[in-house]
Amino acid sequence: EAVIHSDPGFSRENQYFQSQNERYEAAVRKSVHLKEKMHQMGWTENRPEIKYCYRALGGDLAFNIHRVFKNSILALGTDEQIAKWIPLADKYHIIGTYAQTELGHGTFLRGLETTAVFDISTQEFTLNTPKISAMKWWPGDLGRSATHAVVFAQLYIKGKCYGLHAFILQIRSLCDHSPAPGVIVGDIGPKMNFEHIDNGYLMLQNINIPRENMLSRFSQVLPDGTYVKQGSDKINYLTMIVTRVQMLWTEVIPMLLRACTIAIRYSVVRRQSKLNPSDPEAKILDYQTQQQKLLPLLATAYAFHFMNAFVNEFYNKGYTEIKQGNFESLPELHALTSGLKAIITDFCTAGAEVCLRACGGHGYSALSGLPFLYTKLVASCIYEGENTVLFLQTARFLVKCLAAAHSDQSIPASAAYLSSVGSGKCKAWTKTDFLKPDVYAEAYRHRATRLLGNAATKLQALVQSGAEQYEAWNKCTIQLVQAAKAHCHYIVVKNFIDTVEKLKNEAEIQKIVKHLCDLFALHGIFSNTGDFLHAGYISGDQMDMVTASYLDLLAVIRSDAVPLVDAFDFTDESLNSALGCYDGHIYQRLYEWAQKSPTNQQVSRAYASYLKPLFQSAPSKL
Amino acid sequence: EAVIHSDPGFSRENQYFQSQNERYEAAVRKSVHLKEKMHQMGWTENRPEIKYCYRALGGDLAFNIHRVFKNSILALGTDEQIAKWIPLADKYHIIGTYAQTELGHGTFLRGLETTAVFDISTQEFTLNTPKISAMKWWPGDLGRSATHAVVFAQLYIKGKCYGLHAFILQIRSLCDHSPAPGVIVGDIGPKMNFEHIDNGYLMLQNINIPRENMLSRFSQVLPDGTYVKQGSDKINYLTMIVTRVQMLWTEVIPMLLRACTIAIRYSVVRRQSKLNPSDPEAKILDYQTQQQKLLPLLATAYAFHFMNAFVNEFYNKGYTEIKQGNFESLPELHALTSGLKAIITDFCTAGAEVCLRACGGHGYSALSGLPFLYTKLVASCIYEGENTVLFLQTARFLVKCLAAAHSDQSIPASAAYLSSVGSGKCKAWTKTDFLKPDVYAEAYRHRATRLLGNAATKLQALVQSGAEQYEAWNKCTIQLVQAAKAHCHYIVVKNFIDTVEKLKNEAEIQKIVKHLCDLFALHGIFSNTGDFLHAGYISGDQMDMVTASYLDLLAVIRSDAVPLVDAFDFTDESLNSALGCYDGHIYQRLYEWAQKSPTNQQVSRAYASYLKPLFQSAPSKL
Repeated sequence: EAVIHSDPGFSRENQYFQSQNERYEAAVRKSVHLKEKMHQMGWTENRPEIKYCYRALGGDLAFNIHRVFKNSILALGTDEQIAKWIPLADKYHIIGTYAQTELGHGTFLRGLETTAVFDISTQEFTLNTPKISAMKWWPGDLGRSATHAVVFAQLYIKGKCYGLHAFILQIRSLCDHSPAPGVIVGDIGPKMNFEHIDNGYLMLQNINIPRENMLSRFSQVLPDGTYVKQGSDKINYLTMIVTRVQMLWTEVIPMLLRACTIAIRYSVVRRQSKLNPSDPEAKILDYQTQQQKLLPLLATAYAFHFMNAFVNEFYNKGYTEIKQGNFESLPELHALTSGLKAIITDFCTAGAEVCLRACGGHGYSALSGLPFLYTKLVASCIYEGENTVLFLQTARFLVKCLAAAHSDQSIPASAAYLSSVGSGKCKAWTKTDFLKPDVYAEAYRHRATRLLGNAATKLQALVQSGAEQYEAWNKCTIQLVQAAKAHCHYIVVKNFIDTVEKLKNEAEIQKIVKHLCDLFALHGIFSNTGDFLHAGYISGDQMDMVTASYLDLLAVIRSDAVPLVDAFDFTDESLNSALGCYDGHIYQRLYEWAQKSPTNQQVSRAYASYLKPLFQSAPSKL
Repeated sequence: EAVIHSDPGFSRENQYFQSQNERYEAAVRKSVHLKEKMHQMGWTENRPEIKYCYRALGGDLAFNIHRVFKNSILALGTDEQIAKWIPLADKYHIIGTYAQTELGHGTFLRGLETTAVFDISTQEFTLNTPKISAMKWWPGDLGRSATHAVVFAQLYIKGKCYGLHAFILQIRSLCDHSPAPGVIVGDIGPKMNFEHIDNGYLMLQNINIPRENMLSRFSQVLPDGTYVKQGSDKINYLTMIVTRVQMLWTEVIPMLLRACTIAIRYSVVRRQSKLNPSDPEAKILDYQTQQQKLLPLLATAYAFHFMNAFVNEFYNKGYTEIKQGNFESLPELHALTSGLKAIITDFCTAGAEVCLRACGGHGYSALSGLPFLYTKLVASCIYEGENTVLFLQTARFLVKCLAAAHSDQSIPASAAYLSSVGSGKCKAWTKTDFLKPDVYAEAYRHRATRLLGNAATKLQALVQSGAEQYEAWNKCTIQLVQAAKAHCHYIVVKNFIDTVEKLKNEAEIQKIVKHLCDLFALHGIFSNTGDFLHAGYISGDQMDMVTASYLDLLAVIRSDAVPLVDAFDFTDESLNSALGCYDGHIYQRLYEWAQKSPTNQQVSRAYASYLKPLFQSAPSKL
């Protein structure tokens, strides 16, 4: 990271003062500069240095969707297509975008309206945007940069629709960057964040592309118009799975780690009010309410960090199988990554808001870096699948698993617990019993099984009483989402427990990580008491023990909180926060940074034009 | 509002495209223009037209803290001081700010470090900022506009500190706007929102002001240095109470109404996926999960709208008494406004995020207006008292009330229920029983009483086992916050029930409002099941009835959702949202507005400087 920070071309000093135009320009400049730097240093895309570069730069780079463009070609393209396009994209000889979402259509892929009609006589596809709601809308790198696009469109051959397929087309000239004939393209304007990304719109009017430009690893159109398909219907989801897995470790989980680092460091410097009337003002992290806000988030950050390692491993295995034509793991991979994407982005977003608010007014200053983290994270709850929709995908998978369990069929590993019959009552007798992973894991398992069982029973009852399947499903969705959340929550707790076990040869570290695991698990029970009390699995008295253990843990983690965020090892430059620096000089830095703001560098016309005439009417002596 | 909208001087067309400087300038221009307009139209500050002006302008005006400056003089100043300063401020001959918060000090007023030392020989106070953490930080209108300030400082007479007092001083010249000698003043830079407000910093170096400039209604310094005090120690809180009450109806509750209007209108135009496979794509508001997101918020908007009427009445009565020297109602007024400020800002902020996310990607576009509402609301959780601190103020009051109840003393009306002994079990037998206001009111009462009782018992036990009072208090704060929230939640439910009863002569309206009241109450139980299940007040079976009744209500309110937001009666100009317009033309408007974005008006240098050289190295034939 030192290489990056020592290079003035990567400075983030003015980031919080820039306009949308300036941020876009800086992001393009840095991305091109990074490519040169990589070449100089001999780094390649797959070396770990790159991960550190992204980390050091805080994600403020262009061409993220260019990567998705490449991923989609790698996932859906033939070997020839990969050989043709990937080298061009790797060298930035072309910039690509991934044009899926439309103005009127998001998550429901079958609803997309863009068309691609195959003409046997010319051996070309003709792409069209039939109406305004079919305009491609949101793709990053599209608004001002991209020369090419992978466009998803409904494939028509001889009047018959074969569903959604991906096509590569050129949208801007490589000579002068003007839009290709028949292409209307632009930027969708300001957003809550991502000013550095040129999210764009794209309308296509009779654009012809050769037959070779349909991505054809899993389905192709032969010269005579014959349609050949191989593999699952769900294969279009593959790019989304890849993207979801990547976004978690590049754009989501690290943001929570950053927010925790900033808020916890601030909370041991900031003093407010008195705990003991005879002492000076207390550090705010010594207040129980501040610990309640930040320390469970710290545990969550570790939980997701470990979860991410698991997901990557699981995904790599599945991806390899699928590329080899074995689609068996696709449903579980899709369900698991959908649900985890949803719960992780939900928790990280809520966590960033908590961190911001826990720093009071200074958290609300852009200079804290926290507004930036929040506004970036909230987008992750929406993009790459809206979270409610994703939870329902997971729920649909779980309902199938439950049915399989009831008929003694085998169930994928992540849902295997659904077939085991647990006890109806929690066996804890004292508050320390709740520090046993078996005890809380069983509680989470019971909750997930119960919520899913209830939702499935209701669904079945509705259908049996004559409701249509779709209508019954809709009437159960609130409860199905709850069940999917409980399942994902359990998966995260379970993985945390497994991680602690694996540390058995490092007793000191294991001890601290075990505290974090306990805190994560008990905070989850403490924050969702009703789910555990409802059927009496945990009694009111036992819940009081959970509360007591949970509050004890806050005090335990308090003493390690600073080293635990220091271990995330963010440089000051990478955090880019006036509150979060390692040296703790928050007030000096806020004052210095504020003085650099353009609001202090220029005299506003407001005074001369509007205020001066008023003030000059005031009586001369006040 | 038509007068405002027809005046191009008030246009908000470019709001989402403006820089911090531009937004500040526009806000000043509009505020001065509004003052002229008011003069032309013969409107005065207290006429209802003004309320509509603010509404029409969506709050994008300068000089909000100038109003707090005036309020503080009206609340804390003598009649002479009011007569001298208020006319100047009313005419904008001076612009004032309210300088309380310091860089190192927020909610804990006693910790403020600015000093005001009285010198008998000169009859002047000398104000100083003794160190960097004492710099005034955050006051609005300070950074670039204000000529005067009400500054809070520790008063010293003959070396003795008399605590915090308010002083009026001039900080900039009325001739050329340059900072007064010894004054260092500037803007604190970018924030998450409020770009139109020039929040500022202020350092004072030996500023002398005459004795008459201390606001002296409740305490004064005589020429010989004698300090005379009248009234409560808490009188400095009065300005904050005034400000909290005003902010709820100007800056907070209307923002939730706006967010609901935008999200619900969008949700009946936007279609996604299919409910019935043979139908076209369904309106997203017909999905149960979307109803779950938005309809309880609609009920919350109505709940707070009605709550606001109650608070205003309660406050007007108390304020009049206090100004007449009767401080009896101050503790209750302070506790009630603190807790309600906290719960209302918490709910509204969370609600705005839900609305934003419920509109998917388009909600995340600045053009939806929703990011603006969220980023504005989240500040309201922090300013005028951070919410956790405020809930603890309410909790402290409630603990005193509970002690009074146990010793048969009288309790203020809002907490009187603490002395009544309720039943230990909910008496509902069917799901329709949960539509009886008595049933759910009693459940909320039980929850609030139980949580407060538990926290108070724990507090007492800790003290009896030898803990210091402050240490015991800190160990109970998480639970005390829960108790205060439950109390405030009950107050809002109770007031909603009372409002429904008052509508008995308007059966049609009463029926709809009763549905909203039921939904608000049952959603609160459904979202906090543990609080009601814990001690067995509501059983698991009864909770299933709550769920069933709650889900039924969603379908009922769905059919009235659009007229219920139309009734808020926001003009399209005032909403300023591409998604929320009355005509429902969301896609056309998004496209039209996006085209006006500066990102489409200027060619970025990024292409010529960084991209062109790369593209030109591409092979000429792709």
